[in-house]
Amino acid sequence: MKSEFEFIDTLRVLAGSVSRPSDLIAGIGDDTAILSTTRERELLITTDLLNEGIHFDLNYTTPTLLGHKALAVNLSDIAAMGGRASYFLLSLARPVHISDQFLEEMIAGMLALAKSQDILLIGGDTSRSPDRLFINITAIGECPAGNSIRRNGAQAGDLIFVSGSLGAAARGLELLRSGRRLNDTLEIADLAAIRAQLAPQPRVALGAVLGARQLANAMIDISDGLSSDLSHICQESGVGAEIEATAIPIAEGASLAQALNGGEDYELLFTVNPARSAEIDQLRRELPDIELNHIGVITSERERWLIEDKQKRALIAQGYDHFASQR
Amino acid sequence: MKSEFEFIDTLRVLAGSVSRPSDLIAGIGDDTAILSTTRERELLITTDLLNEGIHFDLNYTTPTLLGHKALAVNLSDIAAMGGRASYFLLSLARPVHISDQFLEEMIAGMLALAKSQDILLIGGDTSRSPDRLFINITAIGECPAGNSIRRNGAQAGDLIFVSGSLGAAARGLELLRSGRRLNDTLEIADLAAIRAQLAPQPRVALGAVLGARQLANAMIDISDGLSSDLSHICQESGVGAEIEATAIPIAEGASLAQALNGGEDYELLFTVNPARSAEIDQLRRELPDIELNHIGVITSERERWLIEDKQKRALIAQGYDHFASQR
Repeated sequence: MKSEFEFIDTLRVLAGSVSRPSDLIAGIGDDTAILSTTRERELLITTDLLNEGIHFDLNYTTPTLLGHKALAVNLSDIAAMGGRASYFLLSLARPVHISDQFLEEMIAGMLALAKSQDILLIGGDTSRSPDRLFINITAIGECPAGNSIRRNGAQAGDLIFVSGSLGAAARGLELLRSGRRLNDTLEIADLAAIRAQLAPQPRVALGAVLGARQLANAMIDISDGLSSDLSHICQESGVGAEIEATAIPIAEGASLAQALNGGEDYELLFTVNPARSAEIDQLRRELPDIELNHIGVITSERERWLIEDKQKRALIAQGYDHFASQR
Repeated sequence: MKSEFEFIDTLRVLAGSVSRPSDLIAGIGDDTAILSTTRERELLITTDLLNEGIHFDLNYTTPTLLGHKALAVNLSDIAAMGGRASYFLLSLARPVHISDQFLEEMIAGMLALAKSQDILLIGGDTSRSPDRLFINITAIGECPAGNSIRRNGAQAGDLIFVSGSLGAAARGLELLRSGRRLNDTLEIADLAAIRAQLAPQPRVALGAVLGARQLANAMIDISDGLSSDLSHICQESGVGAEIEATAIPIAEGASLAQALNGGEDYELLFTVNPARSAEIDQLRRELPDIELNHIGVITSERERWLIEDKQKRALIAQGYDHFASQR
């Protein structure tokens, strides 16, 4: 097994460099990373942990996909602010059952995603772990000063949009739990669902363009599930919402319940002033690979409703509670 | 047990506010924290993980001291850059054996240290854990542009200084492993050693003043042990060092080996141009509670030597390898 310092040296070599102008003064190899603040902007800072037995199961995934996902969930948070990620720090607690090869493939998966987005690994911490692999990533992004799109900006009358389709990640987890694996001969929809669970694609370009054009009043990424993440926007903004069940883009093979409550879709949920809906049509033409569905409207009453078969029922945040539930 | 969202709401209330001018636009409660960069400076970013069974043992410590230590080790990294910490993010993976009360006391210990230093909790992530408590903190500090003190600035001829005394934390761990506890009736030196292990005091004021006066050419905090941390400075700076064994401030009850290789002292190790040694005397008068010992000199040859009884022997970095060793 490589020593910690050999491993850090390997990371230092792999961490690479970016092609954009960088504020980085020092990355891996000192007590802290150093960034300059010579340009006026907002820094967006987020941290996400993935631990074995809760967020991932080594029987389901591959080292490469795990590395990808650990970074992807952080990039999704920065996309949901309308910014772009620039840097990340990695903390790793490694049990003996994780080989050097596993670790290197995992880092390769992480750095492949990082390089595709021109993001640098600038620091971290490594340790043994008694039994479980534990990964924590802190990502740092930015947007022009005043441009971050928060959860608290939704206005009554705003149209509610969601990118892509929902429920695939939950359906994928269901398939994995039933014994299906990525390497099996799978139906296309099942393969897509498993890939959505194991290798989510954060909506980096969409988030950045919504931020740059200041087109969304409020935005969040769907990590806990539509019902919960919409409730976060409504609570922070002091508003309510009505969602049309038939308008929700349900991933092939997934159920409405998975689309509402499954979580881990890492799609963007955002609200737009109706006066600017033509700009959403324009955006659809510019990003033809990303479905943008209008699923409902923000209301001034603080309740949240799901309209199904012309019946209104309360849309309850079946909030994924990370302290309580099984995932 | 509180739900994750109840716990986050509690944190949001406890996180408080600072008395200094703040760059914080948004803390807990959105996809990311938001900092503005309107003043020109350097941001110092570090991350440290503490996991149960490796970095701490719940039989040895208390929730309050554990919370203190998790933040303290990060503040030490920022002090070692000559900066001051401003913000931190907390990731927490919580097993069922950790009660709400444990968690609240741990957070209280963390926030007591944070408030004493005017530092804000601005974000984080929470999750269940299958069996072990896992804590990861990312701390963000700052210093004026160009002022950060790195590991790579040591010059041949520099005097090597270390703050406080060394070996107490290792001695404390030895006492804890032999069955002694904080609540026992203990000799003063033993109590100090156990406290050094469980509740290290980062050298926040000293680090900041060395940075503000640009008095150190290179600096690191002693987390792995003097022999290893000196080797980091020497390797990054392309220099060597000679250390006088009799000049090393060994904590009462600790051995020379514990002072050299024990680690976790969180004292500052720094190098100073001899032309500025009068300024160290001045600093000693200003900070009378902090011992500053001159323990050796930086050399142009890349070897590192320990001089003991007029004999020179190679000072080997008995590097604490977090992947391999038991702590």
